[in-house]
Amino acid sequence: MMDLGSLKARMTAFVGSLQEEICSAIESLDGRSKFITDSWVREGGGGGKSRILEDGAVFEKAGVNTSEVYGDLSEAFSRRMQGEGRQFYAVGISLVLHSQNPLVPAVHANFRLIVQGKKAWFGGGTDLTPYYLFDEDAIHFHRTLKAVCDAHDPSYHPAFKKACDQYFWLKHRGESRGIGGIFFEDMRGDLEREFLFVEACGRAFLPAFLPIANRRAGSSFTSDQRQWQEIRRGRYVEFNLLYDRGTVFGLETGGRTESILMSLPPRVRWAYDYQPRPGSEEARLIDVLRNPRDWV
Amino acid sequence: MMDLGSLKARMTAFVGSLQEEICSAIESLDGRSKFITDSWVREGGGGGKSRILEDGAVFEKAGVNTSEVYGDLSEAFSRRMQGEGRQFYAVGISLVLHSQNPLVPAVHANFRLIVQGKKAWFGGGTDLTPYYLFDEDAIHFHRTLKAVCDAHDPSYHPAFKKACDQYFWLKHRGESRGIGGIFFEDMRGDLEREFLFVEACGRAFLPAFLPIANRRAGSSFTSDQRQWQEIRRGRYVEFNLLYDRGTVFGLETGGRTESILMSLPPRVRWAYDYQPRPGSEEARLIDVLRNPRDWV
Repeated sequence: MMDLGSLKARMTAFVGSLQEEICSAIESLDGRSKFITDSWVREGGGGGKSRILEDGAVFEKAGVNTSEVYGDLSEAFSRRMQGEGRQFYAVGISLVLHSQNPLVPAVHANFRLIVQGKKAWFGGGTDLTPYYLFDEDAIHFHRTLKAVCDAHDPSYHPAFKKACDQYFWLKHRGESRGIGGIFFEDMRGDLEREFLFVEACGRAFLPAFLPIANRRAGSSFTSDQRQWQEIRRGRYVEFNLLYDRGTVFGLETGGRTESILMSLPPRVRWAYDYQPRPGSEEARLIDVLRNPRDWV
Repeated sequence: MMDLGSLKARMTAFVGSLQEEICSAIESLDGRSKFITDSWVREGGGGGKSRILEDGAVFEKAGVNTSEVYGDLSEAFSRRMQGEGRQFYAVGISLVLHSQNPLVPAVHANFRLIVQGKKAWFGGGTDLTPYYLFDEDAIHFHRTLKAVCDAHDPSYHPAFKKACDQYFWLKHRGESRGIGGIFFEDMRGDLEREFLFVEACGRAFLPAFLPIANRRAGSSFTSDQRQWQEIRRGRYVEFNLLYDRGTVFGLETGGRTESILMSLPPRVRWAYDYQPRPGSEEARLIDVLRNPRDWV
């Protein structure tokens, strides 16, 4: 088995370099706003670097965070994790982009290495949350991810697409947060091989997302479409606060609240029992969210 | 001990009449919008009546819901409750008012009877969430509640104010959702006496809140104050989705999602690491939320 110390170091270097690459590409595309950097130290051990862009021309709010934290888990929380003992270490990158234009989807990605006692495992994924559905965008996103998966193991993509649809399911709404992507947890076989896979997934984020943002960011939209985006963002908030294990893990392990909750959308609306008009583009989206589809 | 069948019937009649009384008073004060009524049936047993007012002159969103539900709890969830067995019955009223004007506080109240097997207990409370702090409003609200408590038992108010501050605590923010009120759970001594107390609390809601809304609703406000209200509403959402046991109970027992989540504010904003200017009214509010105060 690979030396854990070297694995941690390589993952740390990787997430740092990926953060720079992604922030730089987002600033170029946005053309107006720049990322600010907030470095923070965690009381129990470790810290992180949060990079946030707000009120851009394309991105209303973008957060690209890295963190490397370690220390002792609470007794109760340690038993809910898959490793052994209370000592833990976690390094990862987490990003969420919320666009101004409702035709540009929101997107999320997260890649992490977790060590608890002598057990180590990778997790991560990326998924797309459109407010209006363009089939060519959905197909491009999923095809890009499938190519990365297939290059490592042909069994990955079907399994990770399914896991993604299951993970981002809002039980109380009977719908998915978005149109999925890939999601994997508890990957703990050949750690060397898995590191290379995680690295390839991270490097595929920009090729999967940027062409979509480029294609849609200049389109005009109506205030009704913007309102629909804000209502749908409410579901995004519901998922993150009710179900997301990353959010719970972060808040439970004394992570930095502002960095964890940077994932929440900037402007959100809850309208009582809002129903899109039958046959509309909005209704078509809901139908796909209720019945997740294979896009490749 | 009091007959459970008659207790359920009296509580059901009480919440129905309180719902009418409160909705009628809110419509009068609002002067523009009217409540719509959504009656719903729960698949496993029972149902409810949701009354919602949106886009009013004073209230941006007001929800006043009653429900009477019964059936079987899941095995896992039944063990997390205080009664015995899987059979349950719950009747209650729950209301949340979100105002247009940031100088008018949001307010919440909830009163319920829960029966699990042969055990029955009351719970409830009411609490105020100002965005700007007017001491006279805070004092009036708490004094009104204290008078009701004192008429039943002088030990109630100190205990229930403290329980309220503890319950509405956002651990990850190190602050309270609002300035509290009263909160009680698991009240299962003399059920006849406790029903009378719950009834008195319910009837005290309008005298506690209406004078405040009347006093502030006509005040002018700035767009900065409105923005502050929307940011603070984000904390309201965080509390309800991360911590509120009523929300969890509702979603776990297959309650009606739109009725449970009517508590969420209509327009909400998350700004990264927003900090009010030192010495401002906004900073004074935060200080009180971090250090809950006795107002009577």
